[in-house]
Amino acid sequence: MTARLLLEYDGTRFSGWARQTGRRTVQDEVERALGILARQEVPVTVAGRTDAGVHAWGQVVSFEGEPPAIPAINGILPADVAVIAAEPAPDGFNARFDATARTYCYRVWTRRARSVRYAGTALHHPQPLDRDALHGCAAALAGTHDFTAFTPTDTEHVRFERDVAFAHWREDGDLLEFWIQADAFMRNMNRVLVGTMLEVARGRRSVESFVALLDGAPRSAAGATALPHGLALVRVSYPDGFGDPAA
Amino acid sequence: MTARLLLEYDGTRFSGWARQTGRRTVQDEVERALGILARQEVPVTVAGRTDAGVHAWGQVVSFEGEPPAIPAINGILPADVAVIAAEPAPDGFNARFDATARTYCYRVWTRRARSVRYAGTALHHPQPLDRDALHGCAAALAGTHDFTAFTPTDTEHVRFERDVAFAHWREDGDLLEFWIQADAFMRNMNRVLVGTMLEVARGRRSVESFVALLDGAPRSAAGATALPHGLALVRVSYPDGFGDPAA
Repeated sequence: MTARLLLEYDGTRFSGWARQTGRRTVQDEVERALGILARQEVPVTVAGRTDAGVHAWGQVVSFEGEPPAIPAINGILPADVAVIAAEPAPDGFNARFDATARTYCYRVWTRRARSVRYAGTALHHPQPLDRDALHGCAAALAGTHDFTAFTPTDTEHVRFERDVAFAHWREDGDLLEFWIQADAFMRNMNRVLVGTMLEVARGRRSVESFVALLDGAPRSAAGATALPHGLALVRVSYPDGFGDPAA
Repeated sequence: MTARLLLEYDGTRFSGWARQTGRRTVQDEVERALGILARQEVPVTVAGRTDAGVHAWGQVVSFEGEPPAIPAINGILPADVAVIAAEPAPDGFNARFDATARTYCYRVWTRRARSVRYAGTALHHPQPLDRDALHGCAAALAGTHDFTAFTPTDTEHVRFERDVAFAHWREDGDLLEFWIQADAFMRNMNRVLVGTMLEVARGRRSVESFVALLDGAPRSAAGATALPHGLALVRVSYPDGFGDPAA
């Protein structure tokens, strides 16, 4: 049978999702825990590979086998990974290819003083930001664009258009959150989007120049890649509703 | 001159606020950082001593000297403590005696699966809780009561009455938050209140028996002391408005 898991992890001490020899990765921990319970190797398919340091509050994986008992697998997993739902999946379910959308959130802490509470999950940006500029950039993102400028030149991607369902900055006092949902994302895409928008909000480039990047401009035309710890994969969407961390 | 600081700290790796030989305490770190900047010893007065493991998102201290530059002191303090405001205080200001109220929040995570995101700042309680019972207990707390039952028998306190301005449980899905404001709190008081309310919410004692404890019952009549990591000192109130972490 096919099964699926909904996962939470704090990316701080991981070299990202994908297995790499000699590195601590989330994939290793999840496959190791499933393997202990199943007494055989359990390769998993992930909905969205996250970079080193990126968090996930709603990651999804699928695999062939029985869904584990939640307390059993959480007893094996380290403290920075947890299974929050586990269930049998429809036949042939694939966490990656059946996903219809991914939602990410990037947090920026803009108070002059650093924050203990948000240190691990928000970028500290002590200088003032032009919030209207951030809103102006985000407003241009909805729809289909060529995001070539927002992923490394040395790439495995073959198609650079992505369809953005929504993108906006939410303000909560000194905490700014960039929320974006698209059909799929390319490597580093959200971090380069945020890094470039922050350059606009610091007055180093115009909103218009940001918007002009969305038509297949080269990577060199966009800004820096924002640090990973502000980013979290919040939700992966499926036609049958699986994947909601609040459910 | 007198100065005052507003502080944030994550209590996880501290043996509480108050200096103890051979232990890592928040007081040591703050006095050490102030001392480096002032080039002399700077003893501080704290608004609310917190137990080992308890967090503070709005602690206040006062001391004789100049307020430090925030980036300078935050550059010296370790990652789990931060100064979020520093200013000259009115002459004779005392962080402890001038405080008119303290507000605490205790968080409980009630989903069966543990949470990575809330692991450090909420008690994980996987069994179901009777939320109506929690609300019933909290509703009895407002007003003046004798809280002898909620602090250790071996005590430095001489007066056991406290004046509770408000107390309520807030529900946000699987996250329950107990908010309480009073003129002052005794040692362990919030943790024993929460531990006893959780026993009511598990059906082990009645709301009426909880209410009966508020009239000077002995410590042995109340419940267990809830673990410290769910508790945070959120705000200390002063007549001139200092202490608001959102300001």
